[in-house]
Amino acid sequence: MYIAGWGHTPFGKLDDSLENLIVRAAREALAGAGLDPGDVDAIFLGQFNSGIHPLGFPSSLALQISDDLFGRPATRVENACASGSAAVHQGVASLLAGTARTVLVIGAEKMSDAPADVVGAGLLGADYESAGSTSATGFAGLFAEVAKTYSERYGDCSDTLASIAAKSHHNALANPYAHLRRDFDEEFCRTVSARNPMVADPLRRTDCSPVSDGAAALVLTTATAAPVRFLGLAHANDFLPAPKRDPLAFAATTLAWQRALELAGVTHADLSLVELHDCFTIAELNLYEALGIAERGQGARVLAEGRLHRDGDLPVNPSGGLKSKGHPVAATGVSQHVLAAMQLTGTAGEMQVPDATIAAVHNTGGLAVANYASVLTGQ
Amino acid sequence: MYIAGWGHTPFGKLDDSLENLIVRAAREALAGAGLDPGDVDAIFLGQFNSGIHPLGFPSSLALQISDDLFGRPATRVENACASGSAAVHQGVASLLAGTARTVLVIGAEKMSDAPADVVGAGLLGADYESAGSTSATGFAGLFAEVAKTYSERYGDCSDTLASIAAKSHHNALANPYAHLRRDFDEEFCRTVSARNPMVADPLRRTDCSPVSDGAAALVLTTATAAPVRFLGLAHANDFLPAPKRDPLAFAATTLAWQRALELAGVTHADLSLVELHDCFTIAELNLYEALGIAERGQGARVLAEGRLHRDGDLPVNPSGGLKSKGHPVAATGVSQHVLAAMQLTGTAGEMQVPDATIAAVHNTGGLAVANYASVLTGQ
Repeated sequence: MYIAGWGHTPFGKLDDSLENLIVRAAREALAGAGLDPGDVDAIFLGQFNSGIHPLGFPSSLALQISDDLFGRPATRVENACASGSAAVHQGVASLLAGTARTVLVIGAEKMSDAPADVVGAGLLGADYESAGSTSATGFAGLFAEVAKTYSERYGDCSDTLASIAAKSHHNALANPYAHLRRDFDEEFCRTVSARNPMVADPLRRTDCSPVSDGAAALVLTTATAAPVRFLGLAHANDFLPAPKRDPLAFAATTLAWQRALELAGVTHADLSLVELHDCFTIAELNLYEALGIAERGQGARVLAEGRLHRDGDLPVNPSGGLKSKGHPVAATGVSQHVLAAMQLTGTAGEMQVPDATIAAVHNTGGLAVANYASVLTGQ
Repeated sequence: MYIAGWGHTPFGKLDDSLENLIVRAAREALAGAGLDPGDVDAIFLGQFNSGIHPLGFPSSLALQISDDLFGRPATRVENACASGSAAVHQGVASLLAGTARTVLVIGAEKMSDAPADVVGAGLLGADYESAGSTSATGFAGLFAEVAKTYSERYGDCSDTLASIAAKSHHNALANPYAHLRRDFDEEFCRTVSARNPMVADPLRRTDCSPVSDGAAALVLTTATAAPVRFLGLAHANDFLPAPKRDPLAFAATTLAWQRALELAGVTHADLSLVELHDCFTIAELNLYEALGIAERGQGARVLAEGRLHRDGDLPVNPSGGLKSKGHPVAATGVSQHVLAAMQLTGTAGEMQVPDATIAAVHNTGGLAVANYASVLTGQ
């Protein structure tokens, strides 16, 4: 199964409506694929929403692209912050099922119209224990607990988190779609200040992805001449209640990642780059280990060796990741696939990883509850 | 593709949580299929929610059935009031894709915990023009406009709507899962009274489906020995903005219905029964015509002939339909498939249509915006 085209709006606080974001990204993807809207057999829209946007039935917004889309099957899929990859994976399933030859996949979120407390409550709606309650720190508070557990097990990780934040910000300078394009260095990220306040101890503002608007789109196809090919995909869910999960294990993330690599027949040594789900810097640190890029407790060492920077042997989040690119919830998973496709076709501009041949994408919803991995190659 | 087992909670105002509803229906479906939870390869959960329930990330609730479900891919799908069929159709796609041999499909909604204004706003979230606004009459107001347009085009339909309501209530007496089991006759349904007030002129309370809790589940399989087989499925979306749709055309519903029948190689003469989406009596009347059971403007005549009653030649909604069975939004589409499976296996109890061999299901979201049809047979 293949990717024929892609589109990506800027991420950030945008004037566009949800509908405009969807239409913009999708039209760009279709144009890139050299296809007309009428060529689309099926549409999958990833959207989280969770009360943040009043329209609770967005699937047919994608039909606003063109009147030629009348009658096409359109389905919204949701898996919290992995809703974008949920749409990608359902799109691939349609191709495999033989019910579609051309699938339009869109991930989109419009968050900046809602008051901060509504956004906070919506995001907490992805947590089994916190849904419906009020929390001043929201999901940052949940990942702060992950950071505390990490520090208890392996030693204080605050400086490592600052180092991850600085890498992310530096990478995002090269990403024209990124929400935050500021070259905050390690010293800035490490230091609690008026411009970098503590959000939920030990997570500072620079440890957290921002609330963003945005959309990304892919045209998936069975046509073998397309520029990017899926080598492997996997999806694994974990239990929702926190007591049923070790906070650092990310066990179902590991399962999805290993299965996707196995299906693709590749190892980490074969990967040119990874786009992974760094909603918080502690997520990125813990993912180095859950994905097997580093041994448990050794993430800081691998990072310090420079291997995961854009000029390292396994660049992680050369786009700036969720942390600096922004995290319009359901757009994220599709965006990760778009950025991988750009890298694999040598069209990633200043983000380009030289000679990128194989890329892996990791996207997760909740505290590693819904987990997706894709391995892609250029051709 | 086949149905191996099914489960169905009562519909109504229930004490169960959303999680309990999901677990109850799914366990019953697995037991009926003679399978263990660990046999499940993938899970699809239909849920509308739209701000009615605080948990915005329900897919992994299905893993609460058993610890053996760790790592299984679980995906929530949403297409407003057709979210249940969305889950069924995605489940079938997984089987066709070869990525699963056994799929657990669940539709569930917990509505009675939310205040009436939250439920009303959530349901209006399925309408492009009304989402985010307040309306005293909600979706009933939208379907009241359909009824007015119908009466303008074809003559006053109020008595026909009362006749449909009476048929529905009579049928639901035989349905142990039904929310409303009261034998309201045509006279009662026709007459505006303290017990049957006008909700949105010309729709009386007996013209409207109730707000319900409930869940239904199916086990889908590639195993050919299963008791029920899919003969055809189709899904077609229409545009969201009302000005882009004729209010009576239900054009994409017609498209989905005709395509499913064509794929199944059957005509209406082959159908033993139909379960269709009667969220309001005017929806059922207009669907007689949009589906081609009656010519345009002739729905009342076909109904009056008795052909659509349980002892007619094409019983419509022998379960009582959404109107009397209840309408826990995303449970509905799965419930319709469950009831069809019961009919086709001769296990529908007092609801049983004699010698039922082929059944068709129609489920729609919004004002005929997201439309699904399935044709099933016993074997």
